[in-house]
Amino acid sequence: MSGFRHVVMFRWAEGTTTSQQEEARVRLAELPGVIPEIRGYSLGHDAGVNEGNYDFVVVGDFADRDDYLAYRDHPAHRAVIDEYIKPIMDQRAAVQYEL
Amino acid sequence: MSGFRHVVMFRWAEGTTTSQQEEARVRLAELPGVIPEIRGYSLGHDAGVNEGNYDFVVVGDFADRDDYLAYRDHPAHRAVIDEYIKPIMDQRAAVQYEL
Repeated sequence: MSGFRHVVMFRWAEGTTTSQQEEARVRLAELPGVIPEIRGYSLGHDAGVNEGNYDFVVVGDFADRDDYLAYRDHPAHRAVIDEYIKPIMDQRAAVQYEL
Repeated sequence: MSGFRHVVMFRWAEGTTTSQQEEARVRLAELPGVIPEIRGYSLGHDAGVNEGNYDFVVVGDFADRDDYLAYRDHPAHRAVIDEYIKPIMDQRAAVQYEL
């Protein structure tokens, strides 16, 4: 397999509602229909198995680094970050790597 | 698609060498040969595209939550954590979610 993967986790701020968290997921889930560079896109709320976990994860697959950068900087992606992620975000952890 | 995914990121402690980081990756990469519950296993050192990232990520896929728990608690996995991960770990961030 070859490609470039972006993984990011968020811990939501205290007081964030379930509907705000789900709204962020729904808005992100629309991006593959808008950003053709997205080859694979998987989103998940933490299942609650382990204590101390982050709350939400995004796993995005791209053909290469340039396609990831197109996604990262795409206005539709930035709008979701600004309107739905940042207002409820406490912590963020990310890694990008070559598949 | 159905299944259960485990994602974990590590930030290595200051002073950790590249060979220690690669040793951790190599030891983890042996686990699919030892733990039959692992359905998919992807490991990556951060590509250095963005500042502030974590250093390393593990994406593990399992048929279900029970298979993930078998991996989590498997002695071969715990041994890699104790011998190769914990000694160089600064921060850890994890999410498990239903695929």
